[in-house]
Amino acid sequence: MLNFTFCNPTKILFGKGMIKDIAKEIPKEAKIMITYGGGSVKRNGVLDEVKAALPGYDIDEFAGIEPNPAYETLMRCTEKVRDQKIDFLLAVGGGSVIDGTKFIAAAANFAGEPWDIVKSFGRGVRQALPFGAVLTLPASGSEMNSGAVITRLATKTKLPISNPHLFPKFSVLDPTKTFSLPASQIGNGVVDTFVHITEQYLTYPVMGKVQDRLAEGLLLTLIEEGPQALADPENYDVRANLMWCATLGLNGLISAGVPQDWATHMIGHELTALHGLDHAKTLAIVLPAMLRIRKDDKKQKLLQYAERVWGISRGDEDARMDEAIDKTREFFERMQVKTRLCDYGITAEAIPAVVEQLKAHGMVKLGEKFNVTPEMVEKILGQCL
Amino acid sequence: MLNFTFCNPTKILFGKGMIKDIAKEIPKEAKIMITYGGGSVKRNGVLDEVKAALPGYDIDEFAGIEPNPAYETLMRCTEKVRDQKIDFLLAVGGGSVIDGTKFIAAAANFAGEPWDIVKSFGRGVRQALPFGAVLTLPASGSEMNSGAVITRLATKTKLPISNPHLFPKFSVLDPTKTFSLPASQIGNGVVDTFVHITEQYLTYPVMGKVQDRLAEGLLLTLIEEGPQALADPENYDVRANLMWCATLGLNGLISAGVPQDWATHMIGHELTALHGLDHAKTLAIVLPAMLRIRKDDKKQKLLQYAERVWGISRGDEDARMDEAIDKTREFFERMQVKTRLCDYGITAEAIPAVVEQLKAHGMVKLGEKFNVTPEMVEKILGQCL
Repeated sequence: MLNFTFCNPTKILFGKGMIKDIAKEIPKEAKIMITYGGGSVKRNGVLDEVKAALPGYDIDEFAGIEPNPAYETLMRCTEKVRDQKIDFLLAVGGGSVIDGTKFIAAAANFAGEPWDIVKSFGRGVRQALPFGAVLTLPASGSEMNSGAVITRLATKTKLPISNPHLFPKFSVLDPTKTFSLPASQIGNGVVDTFVHITEQYLTYPVMGKVQDRLAEGLLLTLIEEGPQALADPENYDVRANLMWCATLGLNGLISAGVPQDWATHMIGHELTALHGLDHAKTLAIVLPAMLRIRKDDKKQKLLQYAERVWGISRGDEDARMDEAIDKTREFFERMQVKTRLCDYGITAEAIPAVVEQLKAHGMVKLGEKFNVTPEMVEKILGQCL
Repeated sequence: MLNFTFCNPTKILFGKGMIKDIAKEIPKEAKIMITYGGGSVKRNGVLDEVKAALPGYDIDEFAGIEPNPAYETLMRCTEKVRDQKIDFLLAVGGGSVIDGTKFIAAAANFAGEPWDIVKSFGRGVRQALPFGAVLTLPASGSEMNSGAVITRLATKTKLPISNPHLFPKFSVLDPTKTFSLPASQIGNGVVDTFVHITEQYLTYPVMGKVQDRLAEGLLLTLIEEGPQALADPENYDVRANLMWCATLGLNGLISAGVPQDWATHMIGHELTALHGLDHAKTLAIVLPAMLRIRKDDKKQKLLQYAERVWGISRGDEDARMDEAIDKTREFFERMQVKTRLCDYGITAEAIPAVVEQLKAHGMVKLGEKFNVTPEMVEKILGQCL
């Protein structure tokens, strides 16, 4: 097992009706800015429920944080936060709204050019406004971690940031708030969570047996509950398990003490930035090809994954690995997420631009062994067609 | 899944050599009291290593916190802490030292009679001195939770306390510091961790599939690594996995959203208080009988445990449950922890006094269904002989 430090101070309020408890988590004198996205939280009543839980507070709102939150949008909110001397942010929405709110929290009192926060991958952040979250879409894990992904529209750049100042003070996870999500977002959320976990699990063994068991437990739960969530949208327990899986899949626990990959995510970010594909769809496309091409590097973990997650114990090693990768792709398709570039109208001609963008962002030695080069990315994308 | 709140702010510094990083976690101007037990940390050099990591700090020491830390001892330390205006405590040792230090942290500035802290099960605590821990014996989980168990020698009372102010600020978990532990303490530690997990897992199903998978993952790891730790005492990874299991087994994660039992622990505490048995030994004695007598109440989870943890899928339901309970007992014995009262020279005559003590402490409706009455405890203990 590798050495690690682990600290996750976010308070989770989990379950039906927990929104009503948020006033206990926010100082009475706080000036709050509620941030949200395209307005679904307005239509489904969640925003009203949040405001009703905060009687007597000084509250403003900022709407319009889009999927793949844009620096340009977030800077408009940051200006408002500065002008109005807001001192608490409350994100109501999914991962994009929470990610965007993290950037605003970091940028509000940032000394210098705010884009430097992103350029430094968050390392330059020295403080942030306190913020909480009310989660409506389980997927990103942002509700209980200190990371975010920010997009600059002008340059089609999508980059991750991370900083210990960017943990939410609290997050409300009420599974009933996910009942009204369209099937496509449930599918995306399950795939996103699944690939978060494989990025931290399908690397090489370091005798992190605890971490492996936890990761496998989350994957098994996703496989069991994901299709159920599509078949039975108002099944509370199914939604609760998926929601808690998504949070635990990326809160720092399963990665503590083991190597991490993230090459699939980095390639996926470029596909989203260039072609506008949903984040999860890019992961569903890239992961199977990624695993197949790096089979030798990942052999021991892939065999363990085949056996413990998919129950595959027959056949030679190569066949077992292939079967596990096939089952992974089938699972994504069962979640109604397509797994080929052609499914989204993207052809071989698009590949060089993706590789160039990765190079431009310094992503030339990806993966847990730093051996995923631009040449390998080209090969991987070739198998995604 | 049940509603829950989860918040665990303790920072974990895990791995070889991590003691050297503790100065970053303690304010420079702090007046530190290092607390420890019988002196093994002096003999094996851990105490010196801790002091060397804190150059320039104002440090005092308090030695002699015993297993099952005694209120009487802890109050002597509390007086010293008050007199010397100590403002940071640093526990160096196992669960007893950390538990004792939590009590001292709560008592130092407690307004009122300190025993009330214990009598209220910790509920009366409004503040506590900040404290950290350097763990040398993985078992109790105290290094990453807000609970403790305190014993009053004068009245042979052993009671649990818990309060959100009692999380360590940080804990160092260096597996190499466990290499010198005697086999008996490794066996005890594995059994203690195992039973912490079953108290949170072997209840009744509430569709907490995530929690079940995490608990099962930890149990499987203990079964795999426990005997290895006895056979190969300086195997770093084996010790690392056991250490992390012990911490995650009782840090609030696997209990969040599911029912909890703890009847085995409450009975065990009385056995320790009256007969001086090691905590883990009491659990190894009580758990098998507890599970057998409450088989109907725990049926669904016992069958799941049989299948997923022990791979038992043949036979009728009753036979599968019995086999799982037998395997549990065999595992404890394989960890060199005896599982019968007679192994420790305790006979049937001792049972009524245990039941009386439970009654005296208000423990008359134990377990996840509050149906473990004094009469049932008597029956359970009868099967422990």
